[in-house]
Amino acid sequence: MSRFGDATAVTRVAEGRYRIDLDGAFGFAEALNGGYLMAVLARAAVDAAPHRHPVATAASFLRVAKPGPAEVLVEPRKAGRTASAARVSLVQDGQVAVDALITTADLDPDGEPDWLGEPPAPPLPPIERCTHFAAGDRDRGFADQVQMHFDPATLGWLDGRPSGRPECRAWFRLRDPHEPDAFVLALAVDALPPVVLNTGAKGWAPTVEMTWHMRAVPAPGPLALHGGGRLVAGGWFDEEVEVWDSAGRLVAQGRQLARVGRPSRRAAATA
Amino acid sequence: MSRFGDATAVTRVAEGRYRIDLDGAFGFAEALNGGYLMAVLARAAVDAAPHRHPVATAASFLRVAKPGPAEVLVEPRKAGRTASAARVSLVQDGQVAVDALITTADLDPDGEPDWLGEPPAPPLPPIERCTHFAAGDRDRGFADQVQMHFDPATLGWLDGRPSGRPECRAWFRLRDPHEPDAFVLALAVDALPPVVLNTGAKGWAPTVEMTWHMRAVPAPGPLALHGGGRLVAGGWFDEEVEVWDSAGRLVAQGRQLARVGRPSRRAAATA
Repeated sequence: MSRFGDATAVTRVAEGRYRIDLDGAFGFAEALNGGYLMAVLARAAVDAAPHRHPVATAASFLRVAKPGPAEVLVEPRKAGRTASAARVSLVQDGQVAVDALITTADLDPDGEPDWLGEPPAPPLPPIERCTHFAAGDRDRGFADQVQMHFDPATLGWLDGRPSGRPECRAWFRLRDPHEPDAFVLALAVDALPPVVLNTGAKGWAPTVEMTWHMRAVPAPGPLALHGGGRLVAGGWFDEEVEVWDSAGRLVAQGRQLARVGRPSRRAAATA
Repeated sequence: MSRFGDATAVTRVAEGRYRIDLDGAFGFAEALNGGYLMAVLARAAVDAAPHRHPVATAASFLRVAKPGPAEVLVEPRKAGRTASAARVSLVQDGQVAVDALITTADLDPDGEPDWLGEPPAPPLPPIERCTHFAAGDRDRGFADQVQMHFDPATLGWLDGRPSGRPECRAWFRLRDPHEPDAFVLALAVDALPPVVLNTGAKGWAPTVEMTWHMRAVPAPGPLALHGGGRLVAGGWFDEEVEVWDSAGRLVAQGRQLARVGRPSRRAAATA
């Protein structure tokens, strides 16, 4: 088992009721990563369903989830031949942290597209020309669990030179020997730094709602994440992420509606 | 009141419980339009919420809803200063037809974008160069409630010459004197014929999951609908729709995961 496998392992304690020990390694400063939480919800949903793949996950992030014990409640709403649907919630300390609707179905690992759009442009540069931040002495939480190599063109915000467009692109894989699967895709669609860092925003950008669709079973190897957005207004922004696998297939699509971050008091004071 | 206003009018019968008489005019052959159902759910959600606009709606379509009485159940899950969230369901004849997660917030009608992406390409031709199907003697259900003018380049499937890409573009407004609002946007994001008609698919394409985000309060006048998709595989396809208002603003974004339609037996027999 890998750390990610262990960290998302749900234990069935009753019909539609799962126990999980949320792993602080998949978060930062006591706030857990939204993709990690979606992976946990998906594992419970798939366990309770007659189908193997979470083809549609819509998640409403209500409260920050913290490391430690929590429960996942799965309420089946339809069991169909092609697809099944459930309402799934993450509950911690008596409060709902995440509400989700998860549709499961079976995707054919050997299936070929009937029609596939062009790969996103611009393409990701080869991994060796991307920027990697090595793990150091300091605990970086989530960033220590994944290996991400960023397109340098989308890292200008780090030097105070944001590109001016909501964008972020990176190669992604787990640091663990854990090849991509449905649950890694849940992590991947929410793994990028907020795309609005490149329009000048600073700080944490809390996700309000995120929906992602699993479109194919990913091949082993690194995943290419292409993040963009269409509108920043009134403190809201959208972030679209496409995930392509090493075989050149579109394996996941995600969109989130999030709040533009505000710099911390310390950052504002020194800005 | 307009027909659309009447058709989406929910009556509060108890805390979190609304009655609705679903109007067959917003469907076809006894199956109601998904966008119409999302408009009904949004009206109940907004009525029960401290905020005015349904900024995020994720809907899981479980069973076909039919014209006639139904109930909308609204279960508040969070009431925040900036946004509130609820689980909302449409129940008919003792069965759940649609499950939704709806987040409400207040958008500033006079708000200006901080950043806005390029309008989608290609643009819609002017209305007078688009194709309009006038109402005739035959009851066309939903199509009789809306005025849509289609980009001819995306209507090739009608003559057996699909464009080869999942796409559909049209100008949209209600036939009623009812200017665009949040609830009309719910209708607009699901109003186009399935984009896969242009990759050779035929027949009804049932939506499995749809999420849409309201990004701005729409100006009066026609809405421009830009529909596309990224992947058709294993009987599944995605359909993205952007809605732009007459003031040139992106007002809604939607994505659905749907099943590729199968031709009816009659069509298959004559194909």
